[in-house]
Amino acid sequence: MTPEGPSQALVANVFARDCESRAAFEHVTSKWSSLVLLALGEGPHRFGQLRRKVDGVSEKMLSQALRGLEAEGMLIRSARSTAPPRVDYELTELGSDVAARLRQLADLLEAAVDARS
Amino acid sequence: MTPEGPSQALVANVFARDCESRAAFEHVTSKWSSLVLLALGEGPHRFGQLRRKVDGVSEKMLSQALRGLEAEGMLIRSARSTAPPRVDYELTELGSDVAARLRQLADLLEAAVDARS
Repeated sequence: MTPEGPSQALVANVFARDCESRAAFEHVTSKWSSLVLLALGEGPHRFGQLRRKVDGVSEKMLSQALRGLEAEGMLIRSARSTAPPRVDYELTELGSDVAARLRQLADLLEAAVDARS
Repeated sequence: MTPEGPSQALVANVFARDCESRAAFEHVTSKWSSLVLLALGEGPHRFGQLRRKVDGVSEKMLSQALRGLEAEGMLIRSARSTAPPRVDYELTELGSDVAARLRQLADLLEAAVDARS
């Protein structure tokens, strides 16, 4: 908001290169992060489960995607005090909303491929 | 489909690294292609209009994204026989469906950024 009123207010815009929403959009649509979000959209997963589900991801790329999504407020790590300790990755509310929209996109593309074959 | 029936049928799955839907998903979510789809979701655009709208894209990257999206069946180039000839980029039905889903994702992230500021 500015003194000039709402018509002058800055609103988020993914087309603007310096807007935070553009960075967030690029992040959640990036190669591994998007697939990790889709996987976690089906429920909490452990590292090894994600590694198997997201076909082709390396340990390094998966760790990087998880750290990035955590920093972006999309997921939380929940450690259970079992022996050995067990860590689950779980979506936040925002992460869950993002994952639902990515799922709709994935459904569309999967259906398009099925219709072609 | 296989002789064993529908339970054995292969269905598209974005998690599978060799599935066409995974390639399509990676493509429409890639950095410039996703923004170009969002822009064309608002209506047909010419090259220069896209270049201005998608802040930061170079001519080379924009050409590449447009060629890729055309090959993927997401857009068509329509040339009008004016002098000078005018080329519009326009979404196909599939491209339009994809763009609508990307727009829902962008709306969510823009709203999240606005709520934080």
